[in-house]
Amino acid sequence: MDIQRIEAAAGRLKGHARRTPLLSSPFLDDIAGRRVLIKAECLQHTGSFKYRGARSAVSALPDDQRKNGVIAYSSGNHAQGVALAARQFGISAVIVMPSNAPQMKIDNTRALGAEVVLYDRMTEDRDAIGTDIAKARGLTLIKPFDEPEVIAGQGTCGLEIAAQAAELGVTQAEVIVCCGGGGLTSGIALALEDRAPGLRVRPAEPENFDDVARSLASGRIEHNQSPSGSLCDAIVTMQPGDITFPIMKRLCGPGFVISEDDAQRAMAQAFARLKLVAEPGGAVALAAALFHGDQIESDTVICTISGGNVDRAVFLRALETFGEG
Amino acid sequence: MDIQRIEAAAGRLKGHARRTPLLSSPFLDDIAGRRVLIKAECLQHTGSFKYRGARSAVSALPDDQRKNGVIAYSSGNHAQGVALAARQFGISAVIVMPSNAPQMKIDNTRALGAEVVLYDRMTEDRDAIGTDIAKARGLTLIKPFDEPEVIAGQGTCGLEIAAQAAELGVTQAEVIVCCGGGGLTSGIALALEDRAPGLRVRPAEPENFDDVARSLASGRIEHNQSPSGSLCDAIVTMQPGDITFPIMKRLCGPGFVISEDDAQRAMAQAFARLKLVAEPGGAVALAAALFHGDQIESDTVICTISGGNVDRAVFLRALETFGEG
Repeated sequence: MDIQRIEAAAGRLKGHARRTPLLSSPFLDDIAGRRVLIKAECLQHTGSFKYRGARSAVSALPDDQRKNGVIAYSSGNHAQGVALAARQFGISAVIVMPSNAPQMKIDNTRALGAEVVLYDRMTEDRDAIGTDIAKARGLTLIKPFDEPEVIAGQGTCGLEIAAQAAELGVTQAEVIVCCGGGGLTSGIALALEDRAPGLRVRPAEPENFDDVARSLASGRIEHNQSPSGSLCDAIVTMQPGDITFPIMKRLCGPGFVISEDDAQRAMAQAFARLKLVAEPGGAVALAAALFHGDQIESDTVICTISGGNVDRAVFLRALETFGEG
Repeated sequence: MDIQRIEAAAGRLKGHARRTPLLSSPFLDDIAGRRVLIKAECLQHTGSFKYRGARSAVSALPDDQRKNGVIAYSSGNHAQGVALAARQFGISAVIVMPSNAPQMKIDNTRALGAEVVLYDRMTEDRDAIGTDIAKARGLTLIKPFDEPEVIAGQGTCGLEIAAQAAELGVTQAEVIVCCGGGGLTSGIALALEDRAPGLRVRPAEPENFDDVARSLASGRIEHNQSPSGSLCDAIVTMQPGDITFPIMKRLCGPGFVISEDDAQRAMAQAFARLKLVAEPGGAVALAAALFHGDQIESDTVICTISGGNVDRAVFLRALETFGEG
């Protein structure tokens, strides 16, 4: 993994992925006690940054391999990214999703033309289901994070952060990234290492699913106890990846661990102050910036809102419980 | 009013106003039956396009006049725009607001450092209150729409639409603009006349407050029956302006009249498909694009989401009543 691969992905994504805006609000600055800049990846195609990596990976496949179609495992955001990228290339996509994934994510993935295969996370073996289908149909697996072309695609978000920070004259900042398996985190870290070395990446994870924070602390890959069970479904993974972890270990600062309540408080602030819809897992970095300032040193903090695919009922509950006014 | 004045405003706004993104969703295209592009002005500073015109007007004042401070009448979005612009110049701002304006707008205007003077829309004379204060303190009135430097500032949104449409190869489209007094509508129309003559502006207004649509139909300035009483508070005005109307009459196509239900349906779609928070008045153009396709001819339609300053309870009700999933 290196910057050239990210630059190549940026070339393939040009005219396809959106350059999402870097937003701010004086009200959020007041809460945080420092300048807060928000990279609004919920405005990316399919409502999350995952489209970047999916389009990068699908576009990197040789033509004769790609034409047979692709398969992916995902609780929802990678699913939609792969579904849209496949549709754009006119190829078939099979997405293996847990049956308890957010309904909006299942519906959207289907609506984008993918064939969705649901499995029971507690009793069925996702890998066995996926491997059987892939072999029978000659599909190529697009992994959600531990895949160089996926990391390179997510890294294009880091190229944009570097350019947008430079436009604002920001050369020193902590960059807090919503982190599951580490694809976005490691991709942004690699991009910033080259383009903006004064911007240092730190992952943010939900409580009880802080495998990356613990891995960074211990220096080796640590696992979570459970494969699911957080409101922050988008960023729940069992462990960091074999490719992503060494990158994060080399480049990233200590992780933040965010409660579900604070994630929902951040959703309410994104609604009121940024006019953005954030999903719980997409709001943990903003929550770190707003509510964990004691763990931050830099005068400016940049954070991703990594996705906005939230079921209406979950969003309403967050606003009712944690909103103001 | 001409394009040079808009270009001059763009120069003064550079580095201050945001270039807001032009978004889209395949799901919205499906509903509309055509390509829909959304200019997300709810992501502008202060949560609405009004900051453009306010900053343009305040920055155009001579130094020795500006230093005495400014005053504005507004139900909320112009108020916040003027308050922020004044704060940025280090001058005082008095905002005369109706006491039944949305609470968030009153709170934000105060939090941005302005002195808010509330009046009762039914019993008190706003102009008398404002004129007395302005005279006593030597404040300059920043009108909400019928003022060349305000129109020029709003017109910078049109410069961006022209450039963003060109990037997408769009040369022919109807451009639907949320319309109150016509500042944004006439400003965008002037910018597009020069930069993208194949893009034709059409105003969208709420039911019972369709003074611009009726004025365009009759060819002379028509009035509304009531000064208030719509959920779409941001775009309720008694009549188009003496400066804005001739511009709209020359350049704009027929207006759309949008029910409160359809405005709320559009809010729910902006939530689900764009991850954006739209206020009711900011959603009428999207409602026209999605639900009044029988009145649209072009294959591509561009619409503004002009603001996102909505009280939580109003937003929750719209999502509960008109949301899906």
